[in-house]
Amino acid sequence: MNVEKIKQDFPILFQEVNDEPFVYLDNAATAQKPKQVLEVLNHYYEHNNANVHRGVHTLAERATSQYETSREKVRQFIHAEHVCEILFTRGTTTGLNWVARGLGDKLVSAGDEIVISQMEHHSNVVPWQELAKRTGATLVYIDLTPEGELDLEDARAKITAKTKIVSLAHVSNVLGVVNPIATITELAHKVGAVMIVDGAQSVPHMAVDVQALDADFYAFSGHKMCGPTGIGVLYGKKKWLEIMDPVEFGGEMIDFVYHDHSTWAELPYKFEAGTPNIAGAIALGAAIDYLTELGMDNIHHYEQELVNYVLPKLLEIDGVIVYGPSDPAKHTGVIAFNIDGLHPHDLSTALDMEGVAVRAGHHCAQPLLSYLGVQSTARASFYFYNTKEDADRLIEAIHATKEFFGHGFI
Amino acid sequence: MNVEKIKQDFPILFQEVNDEPFVYLDNAATAQKPKQVLEVLNHYYEHNNANVHRGVHTLAERATSQYETSREKVRQFIHAEHVCEILFTRGTTTGLNWVARGLGDKLVSAGDEIVISQMEHHSNVVPWQELAKRTGATLVYIDLTPEGELDLEDARAKITAKTKIVSLAHVSNVLGVVNPIATITELAHKVGAVMIVDGAQSVPHMAVDVQALDADFYAFSGHKMCGPTGIGVLYGKKKWLEIMDPVEFGGEMIDFVYHDHSTWAELPYKFEAGTPNIAGAIALGAAIDYLTELGMDNIHHYEQELVNYVLPKLLEIDGVIVYGPSDPAKHTGVIAFNIDGLHPHDLSTALDMEGVAVRAGHHCAQPLLSYLGVQSTARASFYFYNTKEDADRLIEAIHATKEFFGHGFI
Repeated sequence: MNVEKIKQDFPILFQEVNDEPFVYLDNAATAQKPKQVLEVLNHYYEHNNANVHRGVHTLAERATSQYETSREKVRQFIHAEHVCEILFTRGTTTGLNWVARGLGDKLVSAGDEIVISQMEHHSNVVPWQELAKRTGATLVYIDLTPEGELDLEDARAKITAKTKIVSLAHVSNVLGVVNPIATITELAHKVGAVMIVDGAQSVPHMAVDVQALDADFYAFSGHKMCGPTGIGVLYGKKKWLEIMDPVEFGGEMIDFVYHDHSTWAELPYKFEAGTPNIAGAIALGAAIDYLTELGMDNIHHYEQELVNYVLPKLLEIDGVIVYGPSDPAKHTGVIAFNIDGLHPHDLSTALDMEGVAVRAGHHCAQPLLSYLGVQSTARASFYFYNTKEDADRLIEAIHATKEFFGHGFI
Repeated sequence: MNVEKIKQDFPILFQEVNDEPFVYLDNAATAQKPKQVLEVLNHYYEHNNANVHRGVHTLAERATSQYETSREKVRQFIHAEHVCEILFTRGTTTGLNWVARGLGDKLVSAGDEIVISQMEHHSNVVPWQELAKRTGATLVYIDLTPEGELDLEDARAKITAKTKIVSLAHVSNVLGVVNPIATITELAHKVGAVMIVDGAQSVPHMAVDVQALDADFYAFSGHKMCGPTGIGVLYGKKKWLEIMDPVEFGGEMIDFVYHDHSTWAELPYKFEAGTPNIAGAIALGAAIDYLTELGMDNIHHYEQELVNYVLPKLLEIDGVIVYGPSDPAKHTGVIAFNIDGLHPHDLSTALDMEGVAVRAGHHCAQPLLSYLGVQSTARASFYFYNTKEDADRLIEAIHATKEFFGHGFI
């Protein structure tokens, strides 16, 4: 990959922040958008903007056709079998909530168990806590190995005949590990449980084949994969989407509304109540085109190269603790770390003064942080437009920060 | 208002459709976006794109500040008392669903009544049907006068001690009538019921003061008021939002996530799970700036002028039936109509051939259409960038269509 050329597609990266050249390393929170995606967004609004499905006039037909073309692009991108298995959502959170409410309430009863892991994002914790509360089921956490990987022995022990739902991140947004989804899916299916995957941190960074993984549901967000904010995808196997209840009710999702009851539209429309984020869906299609053109395997390999480069350098720094595996081969470009004696918020603020944007906090993963016995961490997260120079800038900025604070704290 | 000048802000209007100059009269479905809004959208993505609330780095702070500034703009625009009463949603549908689920399930029991009207959009029908189904309550419809206005006598009869919720459109998306919200709110409050307003067709077209209306909830969509798709607003009085449960669970909306339960963030964040439509909210703020600059009263008066001009011309056409009041003073710029002997889909297709975009169908209001005894209608809907020439083009195109089909059908 010619990253210097690719970077030209992201004008936002060429600015100064606090008088320093900007380095964006907060990609696990949201990714930047290439100009190709913004062009499609603008073209839609400037030429074709109309509401979808309901109109027979030219612009309504153009908008509908582009919106549905995007759905097909998503299908191809994640290798779903049927295009009706692709639901447009507001993002990963909405997708997971829909499954918890629309299917969870149907499948789960008192005494049943819902299995997640210690490394889940809040969006894959709280909907299941609430489902457990509504139904009397129990929420069970798969533990981690000391290196921060999913403990497969523990998974085997905890996925039992009582398990009705297993929901797991494909890639951790803190530990940077890739979970063995296909293996866990097999365990889930063996006990008749539904397998749900939080793909927010995987779909942007690697080729995903939902049929190969055999996941029953797979949720992800557009804004973390070069698409706009406010659009996401929930993939669900047709057999489950047919059983699952819609969670939002209104226009578009109905077949017929009588005064006392209504009947639902066919898949996927049953779930898409109201005017969707039409421009968002179309621009997500453009993001998929962009990523496909680069090649998901190329992106994955390139990011792995970056990790191979930066992780050892980070670990070399005195006082640095990296959460998750220290072996670069087991670590994606999401790197959470702390520096002994330095509060991660101070660290993040200090790095920002050097032009380097990283995140600090609990990363919406408080159960994980409490499991790890830490309040908060800094987190640098890389994407395909980042370079080794960006990694160097991070390392240099950490050294400078250490030096600055060192007199008082370390 | 200098509409010729205003039109320049909407390049989409200057195109040919089917070799005819384009006339867009489908504004009740979605409005076009002025270049000022697209500029703000692009500027955000090109300079400030970052996730909100969670980061301390410069771009995260810029994005958060712009997102929250937009919330304040919405507050001012609808004259809410507190900024924490403004929730960003995906659109009107999501807002109404949140109230039905988050508050309705708490307030409504078997034997209670939920009161709506015969003229509601599906988004203000189906969530209440489902709430009634979940709780054993009854859904009651306020009837209409023969002219298609809300029957106030019937409202007085149907809002009773059994009523827990009243939910009403401010402006009908078919009949074009403005409902007397303040009067109905008074009736609702007298019996202790919660008053909810579907403002999808009002907020874009007239000054709205939620405190003057005294509505407890008020929902509307960004895309119908020059904002982008995928963003909307739910206003709720603080006292109700404090009682109301969140409907989506995940990041952002929590205070703390323990392994077995979670506590919620303060208002308004309690309701905003996951990464919001950041760019959408910021661009909605730009749409509000644009509308405010024009002046909502100016927009309202100008659109009324258009109705005064076009409605009599439409009614003059032989065989035309207009739904809702024939008095222009009682009719907004949403005009549903049929032509004797012509299917509305054929009419809409024929008008499209003349470059005139109108809608045909049930307008997501099947209970209304069945109440009116009609399967579907055509609908022309005007906005402030439409002109009398656009109205003339509609009338001419209808004449041409009648002539074309006349040989066979009329």
